[in-house]
Amino acid sequence: MEVKYFHYREEFHLEGGGRLPGFTIAYHTYGRLSSKKDNVIWVCHALTANSDVKEWWPGTVEKGKFLDPDRYFVVCANILGSHYGTTGPLSVNPESGRPWYGTFPAITTRDMARLHAILKTHLDIDSVKLLIGSSIGGFQCMETGIMFPDFARNIALIATAARSSPWAIALNESQRMAIELDPTFGDEDPGAGSVGMGVARSIALLSYRGQPAYDKTQADEDEKDTLSGYRATSYQRHQADKLRRRFNAYSYHLLTRAIDSHDVGRGRGGVEAALERVKSRCLIVCISSDILFPVSAHEVLRRCIPRREYAVIDSDFAHDGFLIEHEQLNNIILKFLENE
Amino acid sequence: MEVKYFHYREEFHLEGGGRLPGFTIAYHTYGRLSSKKDNVIWVCHALTANSDVKEWWPGTVEKGKFLDPDRYFVVCANILGSHYGTTGPLSVNPESGRPWYGTFPAITTRDMARLHAILKTHLDIDSVKLLIGSSIGGFQCMETGIMFPDFARNIALIATAARSSPWAIALNESQRMAIELDPTFGDEDPGAGSVGMGVARSIALLSYRGQPAYDKTQADEDEKDTLSGYRATSYQRHQADKLRRRFNAYSYHLLTRAIDSHDVGRGRGGVEAALERVKSRCLIVCISSDILFPVSAHEVLRRCIPRREYAVIDSDFAHDGFLIEHEQLNNIILKFLENE
Repeated sequence: MEVKYFHYREEFHLEGGGRLPGFTIAYHTYGRLSSKKDNVIWVCHALTANSDVKEWWPGTVEKGKFLDPDRYFVVCANILGSHYGTTGPLSVNPESGRPWYGTFPAITTRDMARLHAILKTHLDIDSVKLLIGSSIGGFQCMETGIMFPDFARNIALIATAARSSPWAIALNESQRMAIELDPTFGDEDPGAGSVGMGVARSIALLSYRGQPAYDKTQADEDEKDTLSGYRATSYQRHQADKLRRRFNAYSYHLLTRAIDSHDVGRGRGGVEAALERVKSRCLIVCISSDILFPVSAHEVLRRCIPRREYAVIDSDFAHDGFLIEHEQLNNIILKFLENE
Repeated sequence: MEVKYFHYREEFHLEGGGRLPGFTIAYHTYGRLSSKKDNVIWVCHALTANSDVKEWWPGTVEKGKFLDPDRYFVVCANILGSHYGTTGPLSVNPESGRPWYGTFPAITTRDMARLHAILKTHLDIDSVKLLIGSSIGGFQCMETGIMFPDFARNIALIATAARSSPWAIALNESQRMAIELDPTFGDEDPGAGSVGMGVARSIALLSYRGQPAYDKTQADEDEKDTLSGYRATSYQRHQADKLRRRFNAYSYHLLTRAIDSHDVGRGRGGVEAALERVKSRCLIVCISSDILFPVSAHEVLRRCIPRREYAVIDSDFAHDGFLIEHEQLNNIILKFLENE
């Protein structure tokens, strides 16, 4: 599927006070919009993913699955500040004629959600059947549900939180410290800080997969008799290198700060009051072993969102369970959609 | 209390194949050895601690506590490879006349335990009443219990594991990647790599304190209306700076590799067979919320050590609970000693 681009030519004011002289949104669509325009499913992606859902979310954009392109018109937009086509740090700042790099203004998940709403208007869609996102994709869904109550009839919030936890913020800070330790970070170069970003990625993985997941996938044989070279050490280095080859450190640094600032309650009388404003019917899904967005982080969603259903995915794969346990997830979401 | 030094002049062969032309052990003692020599408690410290137990373990070396210096003769030796007086990377290699720095040979928790045994002989102690350690202090206790079955009549293993888990190894690898990212690491200078080590420390903290502990201690006020500068971000930077000022990156890198290699089963027919060799009466203590050495990691200790008791400390402070919940711990250990 080809990526599409939408160019917005108006000045866009960011929540943090900065402004963009217009922007571009890269997005994918799968399937066809029905004549009644009632079959749209809008996917919000997480940190380093992109608009090509089929590429990063296995077992979803397939016949019989919840993103079945024969039934649904699936839309996914690359988020603001990312590296996959939507305006971000490597885009040229038209006012200076040079890439933004580290000067890209601070962004928030509310800014990301406002871009989604502008794209939806451009696509001439009134109300989507389902807005779905996990992790910081879930952040965007919540913000959309609060700011644009008519955006979606149904929302699925998966492995996410109403506000970034102190532990998650600390995790992000350690990752940024690693990026800033890279002596090339700050250079006006697309590869600047990439080794540091690799280290950041290896740190993040510890939160995406807890002990049980590493036990399952990275254990060495019993009675290993050498004193170095473990599967888990190779895994960390390999994953660091993989992200280095496909992502940009300025985007990574910027997006982690956006995550830190996520708090649906900011300026709205607190988290509980904000969640009570969600009109859409919601599905809250958490993963039993998640240490980044633990089951407990979903309690406030469950308690405060007026119309909600709730499910727990039983998995040892922690936060990555939203990608790995796609069969369990598919059953949960299909059931939620059938009961509409 | 003054630190004491023991100089060992014989060549010492390390498990990994390297050798040291002698070594020095820095150690502390509190209280007095009884005439029957039956009141010794030997403490094994963790990663970046030192031999001065009173300094780093609050509520222990005090009247009425399990390290009461009026009752016990308490010994704690700084571990091999550390930075607090025992031979390590900043010591001078007598063969080259220059500090070892990155050329210090690989060490293991078995080497650390063998140093303890040599010091015990030097101190003319036959058998200690209690050998106690948490975290990698617990690693040393296990190795001592297996290699020197008469070292201790009782052993307390706190928040520890029989073998480093893949997740713990991955955590250490990310920390080493951060240290190696510091462009000064490799320089022949005591401060080399210290900024990278600070980042490593901030990563390690995420494992010492999980979500509930950060929630309790690093949460910002509700409805914070700025988009940066969180308590959790300041905490990570502050803790990084603190370790930079007191520890050495070569030691840190070396000791984390020793942790990775910890496996009581290596060359002994596996973990279970090794643990069955422990003759001492053991107390196994874990912390309910520990994510570094979770409750589940203690199951094999419980199952295989022949004479053992077991207790769980109920705490939100995760691995750091062994330092913070010293009252609960004190009650558990006093009871264990009384029932001898």
